[in-house]
Amino acid sequence: MQDHTPEQIDTAVSTAAAAADNWARSGAETRAALLRGLADGLQAERETLVPLADAETALGTARLNGELDRTTFQLRGFADQVLAGAPFTMTDDAAVAGPPPAGRPRLTRVRVAVGPVAMFAASNFPFAFSVLGGDTASALAAGCPVVVKAHPGHPELSRAVAALAQRVVAAQGLPAGLFGMVEGASVAVGVQLVRHPLVAAVAFTGSYRGGAALQREANERPRPIPFYGELGSINPVVALPAALAANGAALAATLAGSITLGCGQFCTSPGVLIVHDDDASKAFVQQLAEALGAATPHAMLHAGIRAGFDAGVARLQQHAGVQALAAPEHGPTAPRARLFATDAATFVESEALHEEVFGPSCLVVTVRSLDDTLDVLRAVQGSLTVTLWGADADTADNRRLVRAAEGIAGRVLFAGVPTGVAVTAAQQHGGPWPASTQPFTTSVGYAAMDRFLRPVALQDAPDWLVAARGQA
Amino acid sequence: MQDHTPEQIDTAVSTAAAAADNWARSGAETRAALLRGLADGLQAERETLVPLADAETALGTARLNGELDRTTFQLRGFADQVLAGAPFTMTDDAAVAGPPPAGRPRLTRVRVAVGPVAMFAASNFPFAFSVLGGDTASALAAGCPVVVKAHPGHPELSRAVAALAQRVVAAQGLPAGLFGMVEGASVAVGVQLVRHPLVAAVAFTGSYRGGAALQREANERPRPIPFYGELGSINPVVALPAALAANGAALAATLAGSITLGCGQFCTSPGVLIVHDDDASKAFVQQLAEALGAATPHAMLHAGIRAGFDAGVARLQQHAGVQALAAPEHGPTAPRARLFATDAATFVESEALHEEVFGPSCLVVTVRSLDDTLDVLRAVQGSLTVTLWGADADTADNRRLVRAAEGIAGRVLFAGVPTGVAVTAAQQHGGPWPASTQPFTTSVGYAAMDRFLRPVALQDAPDWLVAARGQA
Repeated sequence: MQDHTPEQIDTAVSTAAAAADNWARSGAETRAALLRGLADGLQAERETLVPLADAETALGTARLNGELDRTTFQLRGFADQVLAGAPFTMTDDAAVAGPPPAGRPRLTRVRVAVGPVAMFAASNFPFAFSVLGGDTASALAAGCPVVVKAHPGHPELSRAVAALAQRVVAAQGLPAGLFGMVEGASVAVGVQLVRHPLVAAVAFTGSYRGGAALQREANERPRPIPFYGELGSINPVVALPAALAANGAALAATLAGSITLGCGQFCTSPGVLIVHDDDASKAFVQQLAEALGAATPHAMLHAGIRAGFDAGVARLQQHAGVQALAAPEHGPTAPRARLFATDAATFVESEALHEEVFGPSCLVVTVRSLDDTLDVLRAVQGSLTVTLWGADADTADNRRLVRAAEGIAGRVLFAGVPTGVAVTAAQQHGGPWPASTQPFTTSVGYAAMDRFLRPVALQDAPDWLVAARGQA
Repeated sequence: MQDHTPEQIDTAVSTAAAAADNWARSGAETRAALLRGLADGLQAERETLVPLADAETALGTARLNGELDRTTFQLRGFADQVLAGAPFTMTDDAAVAGPPPAGRPRLTRVRVAVGPVAMFAASNFPFAFSVLGGDTASALAAGCPVVVKAHPGHPELSRAVAALAQRVVAAQGLPAGLFGMVEGASVAVGVQLVRHPLVAAVAFTGSYRGGAALQREANERPRPIPFYGELGSINPVVALPAALAANGAALAATLAGSITLGCGQFCTSPGVLIVHDDDASKAFVQQLAEALGAATPHAMLHAGIRAGFDAGVARLQQHAGVQALAAPEHGPTAPRARLFATDAATFVESEALHEEVFGPSCLVVTVRSLDDTLDVLRAVQGSLTVTLWGADADTADNRRLVRAAEGIAGRVLFAGVPTGVAVTAAQQHGGPWPASTQPFTTSVGYAAMDRFLRPVALQDAPDWLVAARGQA
């Protein structure tokens, strides 16, 4: 993937900016038609897009077809939200006669689209977190043009989807600036995009290192802008003895499937398993090790991710307080899943163990008490998810556990595994640092639109204006 | 004001952190009782607090009594919001059977209090933006303990209000950690507070320089935290000819009152007036100059603010493209109000003219067209407010003007003056940089609570937990 030139990048942003004002004022029907048109386009080109994606990512056609379904579902879901009026909600407080503080003018709180959004596509979801993924869908729904920074891991797919998007935009008679894409594998392309004075917000899904660097760029602009970054997450699973005693074998198979899903290349992949020091837990860990040993992950997305995985595994292997539970040989192209073990005290004191190992690897942390568990969760600091198995009863211990989980995560699960993120209004995909840079926002689900709608209070606004903002 | 020691600051934060978990789970009645108790306490001690405030700030007893009223109104308003359930709202999406993407688990989006909030009091509102001001009220309402950094401009008042707060907390049988205060005039105190690992969020009202420096500290922590800073704002007023022709004399008196209110020491003080090059506008500017010349502002809050004002005035006086419309002698202790004039092109190209002059000063910018006006607004970049006089009719020009105003401001007024910020649900006090560091949030009005409530999605949560979160 050749870097786009500074001139090409400037043109993409300027074209988006020229389209921003009209799109911010576009009506619900217009926006919904675009989002549905994009979904229809993806659906119509499935037979060419999925093989293209598979050739570039090795994720497999079953998974990629499912991901395309999720992407079209998401585009249509945002269309429904727009038609239901979500971007146009307002709070209208009537004037109150008399002196302040009780007396007041009429105030109408509306939300305005911020302007062009720079969207950094991820490598690991070539449809759902890439060119027409959730960031693009939510920005367009909010009334913002998008300039995508294509991920160099799937350049041909990115070009095909971008061309599709541009055809849909043109066919609907909309300005080309609503959707643009720039390419580049070097840091300079992303930096130029984030620094561009006409970019109003950034949405990023990717590595901790890249995200933190781009966030600094956003903060150090003459006029800083919001940087919505989803970085790394280790997604602890707390498996309480009762849950394992009741259902250990099935849970081991489920967890092994989650750890190896997509070769572990999920931001919600469970990287830490917290178990107690008892027989049920030991049996469960043994079952998990066997299931992981039998799993045959596919090749990773690209050489850089593979190198990062191997380095992360080496870090665990070389740690004096960590034991390798299974150290299978890697396959010819694909890595094998890894399982490591340590104790609570070692985990808490070793910052190196809190770093995400992106790939099919899990660290078992054995605890002896609830306090140990809480210490381990606190050491994690921030995660997209925490999963609690066996915390369903209303007990004081479970309440403490839930509060600790809520304190560090954006999503707390009481069943199932953290991979798989439903697209719905209640979803929250984002957690305290380092999981995301803006943990009050979500990058999945319909609240993702809120990232691009800034509140404005209109004071003593004329009725036509209030009507226009509400019915846009 | 002597700096608190590092040990004192650590104790204040640690005590707050120890109280955080229980307060986050406190019920609406408990929180509302505290907020109302604080309001009652301020009201009961009015006769001692207002003279104390006046002695330290020179703001006058009429203004300070009004500000105390606003502060108690605000505390009671947050109590009402809590009783109405605002911090406990949730989105509950039922499970849908079947495979994804349509099939999904039950997801319940709740909000959790973030933990201890470090609150930096402002000098210019010794009640409403200080110890028991809006930041403290909204944080307590959200379920977060508060550690106030007292402003050295009114140390005795701060101590008296803090003592009052501590008495109310104790009388209600609540832990002392819910409210703490640290003192210090040096940068080190604030930096230690922002860096403290147990501080979960920062609320700041103050100068651009101080706010930007503390924001960097928040961003550079090992675990960054939200920094809600309200910095500087120049609050343009666009006075269209028709409005001035109809009502110029009254508007000139109103605007002069707004510019000189509190000796111009308001974040919403109108610092830029945009007029057209016609007779009605010229007459208006003349009337404004006369009204400002007749005004007798009181002394400024402290020597540092006065030095800053004098430096800002000197910057305007020395600017080759700026003309002084009135250059009265300063009074013995108080400055006189200043009025300067320039043209649109000079304003747009001179970044020095976009900086806030904190005090009673206004720069008249004469424009020749709507495009000129839009250029001037764009050059401002970010402001708490923009005021539009005479833009009430539904015309294409007015729509462009409104969009430009919405693009740079958190509040857009169609009548009146920007000073005076109503406390209500629809209020938005915050705008794009440099007006605030998090322009999607507000520091005044009931949405201020949202700054301290982080969304969490509970997946397949047991019913008791959903019930507990909803009824807290």
